[in-house]
Amino acid sequence: MDKVGIIGAGSLGTALAQTVANNVDTVYLHLRREELAKTINSTGYNSEYYPNTKLKNNIIATTDMNDLIDCKIIFLSIPSSAFRSTLENLKEVISEDTILVTTAKGIEYPSLKSMGRLIEEYFDENFVALSGPNFASEIVLNLATVSNIASRSSENAIKVKKVLSTPEFKVKIIDDVVGLEICGVIKNINAIANGICEGMNINENARYAVLTKGFEDTGRIIEAFGGKISTASEYCGFGDLVLTSTSSESRNHTLGMLYGQRIIVDEKASGIVFEGKNSIMAIKDICNNTNTNSVVVNFVYDVIVKQIPPKIAFKDLWNNIEE
Amino acid sequence: MDKVGIIGAGSLGTALAQTVANNVDTVYLHLRREELAKTINSTGYNSEYYPNTKLKNNIIATTDMNDLIDCKIIFLSIPSSAFRSTLENLKEVISEDTILVTTAKGIEYPSLKSMGRLIEEYFDENFVALSGPNFASEIVLNLATVSNIASRSSENAIKVKKVLSTPEFKVKIIDDVVGLEICGVIKNINAIANGICEGMNINENARYAVLTKGFEDTGRIIEAFGGKISTASEYCGFGDLVLTSTSSESRNHTLGMLYGQRIIVDEKASGIVFEGKNSIMAIKDICNNTNTNSVVVNFVYDVIVKQIPPKIAFKDLWNNIEE
Repeated sequence: MDKVGIIGAGSLGTALAQTVANNVDTVYLHLRREELAKTINSTGYNSEYYPNTKLKNNIIATTDMNDLIDCKIIFLSIPSSAFRSTLENLKEVISEDTILVTTAKGIEYPSLKSMGRLIEEYFDENFVALSGPNFASEIVLNLATVSNIASRSSENAIKVKKVLSTPEFKVKIIDDVVGLEICGVIKNINAIANGICEGMNINENARYAVLTKGFEDTGRIIEAFGGKISTASEYCGFGDLVLTSTSSESRNHTLGMLYGQRIIVDEKASGIVFEGKNSIMAIKDICNNTNTNSVVVNFVYDVIVKQIPPKIAFKDLWNNIEE
Repeated sequence: MDKVGIIGAGSLGTALAQTVANNVDTVYLHLRREELAKTINSTGYNSEYYPNTKLKNNIIATTDMNDLIDCKIIFLSIPSSAFRSTLENLKEVISEDTILVTTAKGIEYPSLKSMGRLIEEYFDENFVALSGPNFASEIVLNLATVSNIASRSSENAIKVKKVLSTPEFKVKIIDDVVGLEICGVIKNINAIANGICEGMNINENARYAVLTKGFEDTGRIIEAFGGKISTASEYCGFGDLVLTSTSSESRNHTLGMLYGQRIIVDEKASGIVFEGKNSIMAIKDICNNTNTNSVVVNFVYDVIVKQIPPKIAFKDLWNNIEE
């Protein structure tokens, strides 16, 4: 495997470039800003995301999509909001046998399409999706990590596993690309839910009860979305859910904390709110469309979208959590 | 329901007394030490465990087991090491239709019998077991909590649920008493595993990968022990596992931390080590007897029992975690 492309030089894209660079001749790291590309190529540092981590020499930053033409595998490590436009641009440059890998977590609203479904729209269904309990800041340092990948093409999954795997970066292939993708969205709902509870200073027994309920709901929502309930127990399910919900590094967790403390966020200035709301509305719609009742999704929807005071929303959650 | 007995005035026994006191006329709280019983009855405080929490007036401390004779339900909230001897004493005083509830988490070694199995030996199989993500210190304050109970007799489970339930204390009955009991033991193995990793300063991606693997192993060990894999996702499974593994309040977690930091514990002076070792040896035996391979159990066994240096044991765990 000589060349691999990565679109998006943010925290995860850059970290994956560093990992993949162990296994291939050249990694093309595509980004938009000419200046940052020049800095990366001249200094070997992504000054914006990892000012203290020297990138491997075989990583070449580029703003020209044509550099990706020969890449057999291209990772899409861009925000879900930029996904569709990037796919349109990609159509011009990639060949039929290029394998696309999505690492983006999100659902297009109101179409309720996962990023993989967008790839299907423009290319085919044999894309690969990657998700796991993974802080990019640890991957870039080559610290021990496990991630899941899934694809309808087991051949493609094996090829992607091969370019990613190192003794430190373990990749487990699972057989549920739909479930893997939706896990990455639902976990944000749970992170928000836990954040709201923490912001309200809810006691630990209750918070872990809500997290347990959220985990149970995750399995049912995965099934409703067409995935497998067992995926909830995977690294991309259990692992990422627990990491994101108990860590203060998660932006969704912070969003919840702010709402729990009744601190009003400037929605226009903060992209995060919009993104979080999109996920909530998407998951709420999926629940409604499939007659899936989730008290945790309802709780987050009530607080963030309907702006119900968190203590009132929590009382409702608690009354319905389990009998 | 006029009278309920609770044997053991430790942190959980006292907290459950406080909860049950909402629903019955009198709670007899049985303990061994005459002096502490007198203090509880004269001051209304369990000075040793909750010096700042006034106990309800209908809680009566006693050192006389004969006071439990009329109790229709008796909770056993004693350490697993004292369980068998307590059951022997109980035989003298309780009637045939008394419902026994175990809240003790442990497995007798080397018989590999759960506390419920010990009850079966002396009485019958219709006992009830309680377990969940529950800090007793929150229960005693009447803070929001969910717990699971299970019994082979659904009638008994319903009766126990009734004496425990309050708007704050929720009880969910599940249909797997074997799985519920073993969850309470396996979670300690996972808490130790996580503690060892933390003590060694292992990065978060890896720690949450180990926790995910431990959760997956939990399901398989429950099945091997005769329970249901779905119990791993319950409050007594997922909830307690995640609470115990991510909280620094767990003694087993602390035990792991010390081993991870290679701080030698005085085993004779510290009962905790012995208790932790018992659980590990019991679960390791169950795995061996049922051909169940758990890399997380092996890791903890290697570090705590075989005294293999944690970094070497971790390398072995990592090499086998997933491919």
